[in-house]
Amino acid sequence: MNHLLSIEDLDRADIERIVSLAERFAEVSDREIKKVPALRGRMVLNLFYEASTRTRSSFELAAKRLSADVVNFAASGSSVEKGESLKDTVLTLSAHKPDAIVLRTPWAGASELVSKWCSAAIVNAGDGKHEHPTQALLDVYTLRRRLGQIDGASIWIVGDVAHSRVARSDVLAFQRMGAKVTLAGPPTLIPRDIEQLGCEVRYTLDELHTADVVYALRMQRERMSEMWVPSLREYASQYQINAARLKPHQVLMHPGPVNRGVELSGEVVDSPQAVITAQVEAGVVVRMAVLYELLAGSSPGSAEGASPGSAGTHERGVAAAPAGRPQAAAVGEGQLA
Amino acid sequence: MNHLLSIEDLDRADIERIVSLAERFAEVSDREIKKVPALRGRMVLNLFYEASTRTRSSFELAAKRLSADVVNFAASGSSVEKGESLKDTVLTLSAHKPDAIVLRTPWAGASELVSKWCSAAIVNAGDGKHEHPTQALLDVYTLRRRLGQIDGASIWIVGDVAHSRVARSDVLAFQRMGAKVTLAGPPTLIPRDIEQLGCEVRYTLDELHTADVVYALRMQRERMSEMWVPSLREYASQYQINAARLKPHQVLMHPGPVNRGVELSGEVVDSPQAVITAQVEAGVVVRMAVLYELLAGSSPGSAEGASPGSAGTHERGVAAAPAGRPQAAAVGEGQLA
Amino acid sequence: MNHLLSIEDLDRADIERIVSLAERFAEVSDREIKKVPALRGRMVLNLFYEASTRTRSSFELAAKRLSADVVNFAASGSSVEKGESLKDTVLTLSAHKPDAIVLRTPWAGASELVSKWCSAAIVNAGDGKHEHPTQALLDVYTLRRRLGQIDGASIWIVGDVAHSRVARSDVLAFQRMGAKVTLAGPPTLIPRDIEQLGCEVRYTLDELHTADVVYALRMQRERMSEMWVPSLREYASQYQINAARLKPHQVLMHPGPVNRGVELSGEVVDSPQAVITAQVEAGVVVRMAVLYELLAGSSPGSAEGASPGSAGTHERGVAAAPAGRPQAAAVGEGQLA
Repeated sequence: MNHLLSIEDLDRADIERIVSLAERFAEVSDREIKKVPALRGRMVLNLFYEASTRTRSSFELAAKRLSADVVNFAASGSSVEKGESLKDTVLTLSAHKPDAIVLRTPWAGASELVSKWCSAAIVNAGDGKHEHPTQALLDVYTLRRRLGQIDGASIWIVGDVAHSRVARSDVLAFQRMGAKVTLAGPPTLIPRDIEQLGCEVRYTLDELHTADVVYALRMQRERMSEMWVPSLREYASQYQINAARLKPHQVLMHPGPVNRGVELSGEVVDSPQAVITAQVEAGVVVRMAVLYELLAGSSPGSAEGASPGSAGTHERGVAAAPAGRPQAAAVGEGQLA
Repeated sequence: MNHLLSIEDLDRADIERIVSLAERFAEVSDREIKKVPALRGRMVLNLFYEASTRTRSSFELAAKRLSADVVNFAASGSSVEKGESLKDTVLTLSAHKPDAIVLRTPWAGASELVSKWCSAAIVNAGDGKHEHPTQALLDVYTLRRRLGQIDGASIWIVGDVAHSRVARSDVLAFQRMGAKVTLAGPPTLIPRDIEQLGCEVRYTLDELHTADVVYALRMQRERMSEMWVPSLREYASQYQINAARLKPHQVLMHPGPVNRGVELSGEVVDSPQAVITAQVEAGVVVRMAVLYELLAGSSPGSAEGASPGSAGTHERGVAAAPAGRPQAAAVGEGQLA
Repeated sequence: MNHLLSIEDLDRADIERIVSLAERFAEVSDREIKKVPALRGRMVLNLFYEASTRTRSSFELAAKRLSADVVNFAASGSSVEKGESLKDTVLTLSAHKPDAIVLRTPWAGASELVSKWCSAAIVNAGDGKHEHPTQALLDVYTLRRRLGQIDGASIWIVGDVAHSRVARSDVLAFQRMGAKVTLAGPPTLIPRDIEQLGCEVRYTLDELHTADVVYALRMQRERMSEMWVPSLREYASQYQINAARLKPHQVLMHPGPVNRGVELSGEVVDSPQAVITAQVEAGVVVRMAVLYELLAGSSPGSAEGASPGSAGTHERGVAAAPAGRPQAAAVGEGQLA
């Protein structure tokens, strides 16, 4: 794996490998010291064209737990505002030689383009309405922990499917893992050709009780003004997941942040069936796994060099580079001495 | 101590312990290398609902000097803007398992609420008009260094007491340390029941010469439009601390940033009586002490594990976790090999 | 060297020393682990009064590659917005004891003033229309790598010279290195007395073919509304560097970000003659060299202490401080035990 651009590129074995690696990192997260030196000396660049403190801080934390350095590059207040193209921005930032670029943009397919322009590993952190693969991986992780296995589970994804990259990535990932996926919502918010992904479509919640898992999507208030649904009240009356509709055996998921009283009632958010907080928690360990897979996993030599050796030399990451010869001292010789 | 929510929760011994610890960290700050590995591998989350680069960077620096990792989460541009509640934001961020959350909000009592929602140590970095305890601790620290001791000192706090969390925390802290506190300012800016805190109130500066310490509060320009005082000029004529009013034996304090020409004249700001810069300097070491107390101090085992051992293994913070067994290598076994 | 305020302060030997040091750091940048512990425990403060993610992230990365800690202090959303003066902001931040302050402001001469107010090493990262010395140093670095040597080269700097601190610093630096510099552009964008710097001036590109190097300046769109040039189209027709004007033997430079179709045509940006990406790449290593020179280079003792010793104790930076005695443990004794 050189990049993580979409779930479409992954097969079941890839997903399982990342999820299992994340489970190992979860053990680290339960320790008092939550940090491992695996990516010491590596640089992760967060390039965000959309404000998303939540996703950005999850990646930032994942990178820091692996001891990588992080540079945040927000498009606002930057050259981007001065009219620089995505390509020129990426070429410029590539000159800084980041090991990975975590990219969030409003443009479908942007991360794939970027992966062709530079040598860094690209992680798609959401590209328009296209995909949000780490969200799908953390959803698989969360669900596998809760259910034991996903094979054969019936998963309903409810709400604004049309504008949701999460829905698209989740349909693909859940199906790869053996689940049967149903999309439900108002006809205006379900794309016409979506069955081609292999899922079913419902325009009411009449059969919601058959689901093992209910995955509610976020209703974006800004869509409401665009007249996709008559009103939030009308939407909630037909599609809100609430105590009347959620059965006791069902697991409730949501990508966050929740609009209480819109797509979810407050009572179900706080119920033990909801795994919403577990999803957020999964975000860090799954992103650790993705960064590790991309930056250390594919190259056994580098993984070894970057991780602590059995001799307990915890600075191997930095120490490996000079090959027995101090770096800055080397720099200092001659020119500085 | 599990949290630092208010000065009200602290007794004199608590305050003295933190201030003495800060004095030890001040020695570190005078070294060329200002960093200690005490909190290596710990994560401090700055959650700021109000812009305050000054306070935020002071906490950030304190955490970094202790080798902790810092993630800044500003409410603007985040889920908060999308309408997420404080509770949901905190629950989400708690899933990242921060060791401490430094919280600044416009809502009195918010930090106490938050301390009940999650397991992280909460540090109140200002909650509305309620309290700003680390400011009071750094004021005590600064004053103790200047005066030797605070017992018996007469301290006048002058200005907009009504809108000041600093004033409230300082009254409590200075009194705990044995000082006699007088509040002075225009009647519209002194709350009616404030004497209940045990301090005196004056509406003129006629007796200001009796003070040992003059603590001027910031006049917030935005208040002026709310007609609390007739004009800044009028305010300055009656309450500005200037060379005519400040006596040579008096110490001058201010929480910053100063409005020169409003609550303070330029000449007194630059006089040797002013300890305003010393207060800022104290901010970092006092916040180091608070973070150390909360994250390392209360648990001898963890403090020992997180601090450098006497054998000089400065990576003990990270090294302690794997217990003789390399972490990332462990992760790599099986799944990756 | 205590500060880097302007190219005017540097002689040829200074420039060559920094550039050579940068070349050594470039070797580090080509390694998998791009980090050296030279400035571990040091603090670099980025104080930016103008948004410039590009320059800021280049300095941030340089500092992190040297293992220094970085605190970013953007003037927006800070005390500065509340009306605090530059002097008070600097005095406040100095209380945090940064080892270096990287300063970007819209005010010519600001960095020199600031250097008198505090003990930190000041790096001018652009002060109004005055100077941008690290840009000039990275331009020298890039050109020396491309040409072998700069002595005797003819360099044309084309465009909006009047509003360009880059132009001013580059004229000085290129001349110090033995080049002959010509400034070219519309009369409204060339200051009247600029020949006093020792360069020539042309108002057309008729003799551009005599240049060895063509350095195009950025046309800032916001200037256009100020009627410095009739229109962007008019400007481009006379001064754009395009395939018709650029000769095959010429090297093309630009400080970025490029306005494709204005000062440069898209084809020349993407041509092998352009070293624009190499300039960005040079930015990090040159800024590493500047920070190293200022914080470690001038004091042999400190450089030795901060850099890894020959015994391979890579934590010497942190380890050096306690002098055989663990710091946090020392803090813990007595007060905490």
